[in-house]
Amino acid sequence: MATGGPGAQVAELARRRGFYFRASAVYEGGAGFYTYGPQGAALKANVEARWRDRFAVQEGHLQVDAPTIMPEAAFEASGHLDGFDDTMVTCGECGGAHRADHLIEAETDIDDAEDMAPAAQAEAIDDAAIACPTCGAPLAGQPVEEFNLMFPTPVGPGSQEPGYLRPETAQAIFVEFPRLKEYARGQLPFGVTQIGRAYRNEISPRRGVVRTREFTQAELELFIDPDDPGPEPTGWGDSTVQLWSAADQQAGRQPQEHTVADAVDEGVLTNRWIAYHIAAAAEWYAEIGVDPARLRFRQHRSGERAHYASDCWDAEAEVGDGWIEIAGFAARGQYDLQHHAAAADADFSMYVPLAEPRSETVVEVDVDMSTLGPRFGADAPAVAAAVEAACAADPSCAADATLSVTVDDEVVEVDTAAVSVTESEQTIAGRQVTPAVIEPSFGIDRTVYTVLVHAFDEDTLAGESRTVLRLAPAVAPTEVGVFPVVSNAPALVERAETIAAELRQAGLRVSYDAGGSIGRRYRRQDEVGTPLGVTVDATETEDATVTIRERDTGAQVRVPVDALVAVLQTVLDAGGAIDAAADAGHPVEPVA
Amino acid sequence: MATGGPGAQVAELARRRGFYFRASAVYEGGAGFYTYGPQGAALKANVEARWRDRFAVQEGHLQVDAPTIMPEAAFEASGHLDGFDDTMVTCGECGGAHRADHLIEAETDIDDAEDMAPAAQAEAIDDAAIACPTCGAPLAGQPVEEFNLMFPTPVGPGSQEPGYLRPETAQAIFVEFPRLKEYARGQLPFGVTQIGRAYRNEISPRRGVVRTREFTQAELELFIDPDDPGPEPTGWGDSTVQLWSAADQQAGRQPQEHTVADAVDEGVLTNRWIAYHIAAAAEWYAEIGVDPARLRFRQHRSGERAHYASDCWDAEAEVGDGWIEIAGFAARGQYDLQHHAAAADADFSMYVPLAEPRSETVVEVDVDMSTLGPRFGADAPAVAAAVEAACAADPSCAADATLSVTVDDEVVEVDTAAVSVTESEQTIAGRQVTPAVIEPSFGIDRTVYTVLVHAFDEDTLAGESRTVLRLAPAVAPTEVGVFPVVSNAPALVERAETIAAELRQAGLRVSYDAGGSIGRRYRRQDEVGTPLGVTVDATETEDATVTIRERDTGAQVRVPVDALVAVLQTVLDAGGAIDAAADAGHPVEPVA
Repeated sequence: MATGGPGAQVAELARRRGFYFRASAVYEGGAGFYTYGPQGAALKANVEARWRDRFAVQEGHLQVDAPTIMPEAAFEASGHLDGFDDTMVTCGECGGAHRADHLIEAETDIDDAEDMAPAAQAEAIDDAAIACPTCGAPLAGQPVEEFNLMFPTPVGPGSQEPGYLRPETAQAIFVEFPRLKEYARGQLPFGVTQIGRAYRNEISPRRGVVRTREFTQAELELFIDPDDPGPEPTGWGDSTVQLWSAADQQAGRQPQEHTVADAVDEGVLTNRWIAYHIAAAAEWYAEIGVDPARLRFRQHRSGERAHYASDCWDAEAEVGDGWIEIAGFAARGQYDLQHHAAAADADFSMYVPLAEPRSETVVEVDVDMSTLGPRFGADAPAVAAAVEAACAADPSCAADATLSVTVDDEVVEVDTAAVSVTESEQTIAGRQVTPAVIEPSFGIDRTVYTVLVHAFDEDTLAGESRTVLRLAPAVAPTEVGVFPVVSNAPALVERAETIAAELRQAGLRVSYDAGGSIGRRYRRQDEVGTPLGVTVDATETEDATVTIRERDTGAQVRVPVDALVAVLQTVLDAGGAIDAAADAGHPVEPVA
Repeated sequence: MATGGPGAQVAELARRRGFYFRASAVYEGGAGFYTYGPQGAALKANVEARWRDRFAVQEGHLQVDAPTIMPEAAFEASGHLDGFDDTMVTCGECGGAHRADHLIEAETDIDDAEDMAPAAQAEAIDDAAIACPTCGAPLAGQPVEEFNLMFPTPVGPGSQEPGYLRPETAQAIFVEFPRLKEYARGQLPFGVTQIGRAYRNEISPRRGVVRTREFTQAELELFIDPDDPGPEPTGWGDSTVQLWSAADQQAGRQPQEHTVADAVDEGVLTNRWIAYHIAAAAEWYAEIGVDPARLRFRQHRSGERAHYASDCWDAEAEVGDGWIEIAGFAARGQYDLQHHAAAADADFSMYVPLAEPRSETVVEVDVDMSTLGPRFGADAPAVAAAVEAACAADPSCAADATLSVTVDDEVVEVDTAAVSVTESEQTIAGRQVTPAVIEPSFGIDRTVYTVLVHAFDEDTLAGESRTVLRLAPAVAPTEVGVFPVVSNAPALVERAETIAAELRQAGLRVSYDAGGSIGRRYRRQDEVGTPLGVTVDATETEDATVTIRERDTGAQVRVPVDALVAVLQTVLDAGGAIDAAADAGHPVEPVA
């Protein structure tokens, strides 16, 4: 049923009912900035709370909350200062700036313009005689430049310290690794999560909340022993997901359905840590109302991957007019910690004990320099080094009277009387390693948008057409609407207000509405996705019962007020289907 | 008992145990930026959740979530572009920049340097021969300049759109007022809340999280009819609070204890909306663990108030080395909406219906210009306007044959045959008003700091000295620690892990710890304020009972595992005192 409306209808509903809208519109300012209104802020907060519960609390990972402004040195080390660019062409006529690769891909047959050098992009613009999308003037001859996407801001007076708004929340975790490993008590694997703002100064922001300049990420940085192959798929690999491997994409095949466990067995998912988080994400998406039929996981092709990533899969959702990336699952390797370690001169490594301490033969080679010195002069140290290397590799090197080694392409003979080799057994209990990183990274704004698009529906109920958001109770801004059936009966209104207050006290998200006809109030709640409504009518004063109405079908039951909280909780836990109340043995009566 | 440790001890504990620490320290970057580590991020998130519950959900207010970057035009209108400055003096020797008014107040007897003009501040620096706090060079002769505290950042390529990081979350609510009033369905009063980042480019950040450059605010903007006197203190005025009125401050008197209701009656709190929110804040602070004996509400003296505020009170907390402002309660009047209305040319007003429509006499005055024109020439319109004004004020003006009015200081006589006055009765149902704003504004970082300082304690338990954070269960990062009594008994460890997972499933914030002696693990949880511990020992496999330990006293009870969730919930709801379990009739047995 819920096939979802196109983006334009969702955007209209979002603006009209207060999910989100362009920020500071009264000043015509800030393309690429969106404000979440009351409904959207609640929906977004609920999505964040569900994410935190699943990926931090249930996994036992650490959470941090770091500043969004970070010093330049951090981004010099991370590579963002030099490499975090998009290509831009500026119109000579109107001054409009456009993203060059996107223009080329839209106007020509080239579909990998992002991988072309700026000069090649300029040539492609010339060849195709591309015009400025703003004013129509020809862009031929205009240079294509690289534009860094970070927002700079001067920190302190005199701008002695250039700062940048972080382009991803991850870096705020990596730079604190030397401290975070202490809080994890020095044991791998451990995960650190953060939900927070990130900023990218997009050249051409577009498509509402899909590509904005300020957005919210929920990221998990899982630090692992680089040799850790990840967990066996027992107990977590049963989810069925649509996987689109790089090989299938290159061969022109469609995404395939697999259980995650099968995909691991069959070598479709070769990184078990990525597999584990894809399985977790698939379950989580279903819980918050992403339609599994409109969700797929797509592997990056080798040309597409960031240079540091050994494997990467995106979660993609179909949103009416195509697929958008809503999360990424990357094996970032040791890249981040190694680069910060080199730049910051702090200890980004950890000691990893071996499961079983093992015994190892250690060879020590001693060369008598008083013998080599007179014979080899200035070359003596090089000869000694060559002897040490040869004997470490073959402790029997001194068995013969002489030993020949090569120094500067010349073979020299050394008297083995000058060489002593000792072998001993040592116990190796562990080693010092720079952890590798597995990064599940979720775009919260795009997730919220996907949830809205997948929940959007239009149907006919009791002969009236309506717009309804079939939001999951777990994320719906309001769980229960409370209405006096009429608003001009003071006793009844007071009763309804009291019931609303009691439901709030019980921890439910409640909206009280006394304005307009009861049908109109039902429509209003349907439009913002409220799963249940409680209507208080005159009968309540006689028998202390009220009606509960289900959003999706309009079905109603009567329920005693003293069972109301328990019934609502049962139905919400069951996803909003009112039948769950009778199934659970609650004292409810269907309303004809 | 909990008299609180000085800030240095709290800062040390905060760093060591992961509450908060200086951000990007490995790059020696970013003075004035702090990262919340795992314990602090959880504590901060809990404080925010409690605020949201009290000031948004329980009050039925709207919530929004807006971008932190806003366009320049918004801050031109709000007054921040021109007026949001601190004064700065820069050392000619080392280049160090210092906040001039703070230097003067520290080095001289002047205690209101903030109110002095820059030139007067420069003179004071010269007169007192103040030296640079960084290098000791004399600052005499250095100019005192105004430094704008907003962080600028260019939006989009070519910097065509200057943007700023918002210096207060409030402005992101004010600029969206034309839309927000629709979501509130046009009815006053209504409140809009936001928890989010704000940024101030402090000249000299200091004192840890007390004065940072990036911080979190929780603000409520309550929009009211400017004539609305606020609610009568019935049902909410019973809280006892320490109030320090401007009059008491000026007379050198100490803060006085009042119930809020008495303070309203006695005219100490003259703004009932501010009184209402002071009462709510006092209760909320107690709930999250701010010591009422170390909390006071201080009224701004008239010289201290922002020019637009008609009344303002700060909540102040004692933190070991003095009092800090942790919240403000301001009557901002119509200032904000009127200024944005003037700049943005959008409708920032609302229609307010009168409680009872009233009848009003409307006077219409008609002046015959064909009579006045020939006689007064170019002065005729001015004469007509004067006649209209006179007759509107006194409808009997045309009773005599002539009427004298004053135009340009000259008295002229007008023939009343040219003037017709009609009076009629009209029904007035309401009026169009620009709402006034009541703003309770909470600094979340300072609140978290206050909670830590007030919870900090050192005592002796079973002969051992310990550090303990007596955090309220409502905000403690972890509610329950779960421990196997020893870590080398696999069956027992597995049982403890299962119990930890079950408690998590039941929605509790759980920390599982198997490392080190049980005493050491208790100390670790005491230090991060975990109210309760559950210890699983060998007895569990025989009788399915475990022990619960109370953080504050070390007292223990044995409880059946199948009653564990209910018992923990009862004790946590009771503030963490284990006696509450027996009081509530749960099957618990004291452990000797």
